[in-house]
Amino acid sequence: MRYELYYWPGIQGRGEYVRLALEEAGADYVDVARGARGTAAMMKMMEQGGTPPFAPPFLKAGKLLIGQTANILLYLGSRHGLAPKTEAGKLWLHQLQLTITDLVLEVHDTHHPIGPSLYYEDQRAVAKKRTDEFWNERVPKYLGYFEGLLKDNGGAAVAGRRITYVDLSLFQIVEGLRYAFPRRMKAFESDIPGLVGLHDRVAARPNIKAYLASDRRIAFNEDGIFRRYKALDG
Amino acid sequence: MRYELYYWPGIQGRGEYVRLALEEAGADYVDVARGARGTAAMMKMMEQGGTPPFAPPFLKAGKLLIGQTANILLYLGSRHGLAPKTEAGKLWLHQLQLTITDLVLEVHDTHHPIGPSLYYEDQRAVAKKRTDEFWNERVPKYLGYFEGLLKDNGGAAVAGRRITYVDLSLFQIVEGLRYAFPRRMKAFESDIPGLVGLHDRVAARPNIKAYLASDRRIAFNEDGIFRRYKALDG
Repeated sequence: MRYELYYWPGIQGRGEYVRLALEEAGADYVDVARGARGTAAMMKMMEQGGTPPFAPPFLKAGKLLIGQTANILLYLGSRHGLAPKTEAGKLWLHQLQLTITDLVLEVHDTHHPIGPSLYYEDQRAVAKKRTDEFWNERVPKYLGYFEGLLKDNGGAAVAGRRITYVDLSLFQIVEGLRYAFPRRMKAFESDIPGLVGLHDRVAARPNIKAYLASDRRIAFNEDGIFRRYKALDG
Repeated sequence: MRYELYYWPGIQGRGEYVRLALEEAGADYVDVARGARGTAAMMKMMEQGGTPPFAPPFLKAGKLLIGQTANILLYLGSRHGLAPKTEAGKLWLHQLQLTITDLVLEVHDTHHPIGPSLYYEDQRAVAKKRTDEFWNERVPKYLGYFEGLLKDNGGAAVAGRRITYVDLSLFQIVEGLRYAFPRRMKAFESDIPGLVGLHDRVAARPNIKAYLASDRRIAFNEDGIFRRYKALDG
């Protein structure tokens, strides 16, 4: 079965957590809106009857149409060896992905504190305050949590013995924070040696390494979740 | 098996979506932090090894400790007839709950746009802007989406033929918006007749009705997600 991933074609965004899982799994998939059918195909799919997604990303898997990033990973994880096999293990991993989902939204809110419908340029002053708060309070709390889990689990993966979709997502978190906040992140990294090591090991995995070097990996830019605005980098 | 729910004892908050599911199911549960063991029992549980939750609510179900509201509902839904039985149905319902999760966070951000660590009183002016944005753009988008799904599904429930945990959560959304923004919500309700009807039917279900009349239902207040601040009600 060839999966169809639907997501905005110009950004990594939330779609990237799905792309990383598909790539690590070596799954057969097409990133629909980046192809000839473009964003129009995505919009059309959102208006279909039955189970229309609220927002991208969503994944067509045979007859299933699955929305919400963490839900897509819940589905893919079981099918591609990227999640534990037990119910307890699956629930735990999904819980961690939902915690990453919360973190990703807080990253987004650093540049969009007044809401997603206004431009960053219209909320700069508040964005600065929210970003200070994010780095003073939230980053240490979230990344400290995952650093602790990683350590308690032996250091190789956050949950279980093998790499999971949560490890892939944490790679993206480190990568994204480095892009968006190079100065702040450089100062912070000594607090999370385990996560930095995990990031490096994920980046070196053959399928991920090949993906990152390919044109399937979209470059970070200022339309995505992780945006580099000098004024926000402390 | 008696479930143990762990959540802040003074607010409905995110725990309320779990309480509503447990109550509708007639499940045997104890709301731990509201009992003699208090918040200390919750804090202790968060520091246990193994699978420590990032934040409340979390549910102890036998040996399982499950965190993240939507994840808890995913677990409970299957066991108590509050979700479809097919994999496709379960994924769809969970997707909808995750969309409600996003909405709940946006409700929270109306009074905390600069972040969760500062008081409302320190971010009033921004809160006003964010709330305007929320009501102009986000409420119509989210509630319009669920109104459409409800209509397309025949009007009795948002997904499937029976009441699910998503219907219970939508009851809480309507209830909460009425509490926090009475003027704005009153003006908006004519746009969502289906959801208002669903709210009323959920409120009239025997187990929910008994719950709402009991002291197990905590009253809305200004420490929870839905807060009534006159300045934000337009």
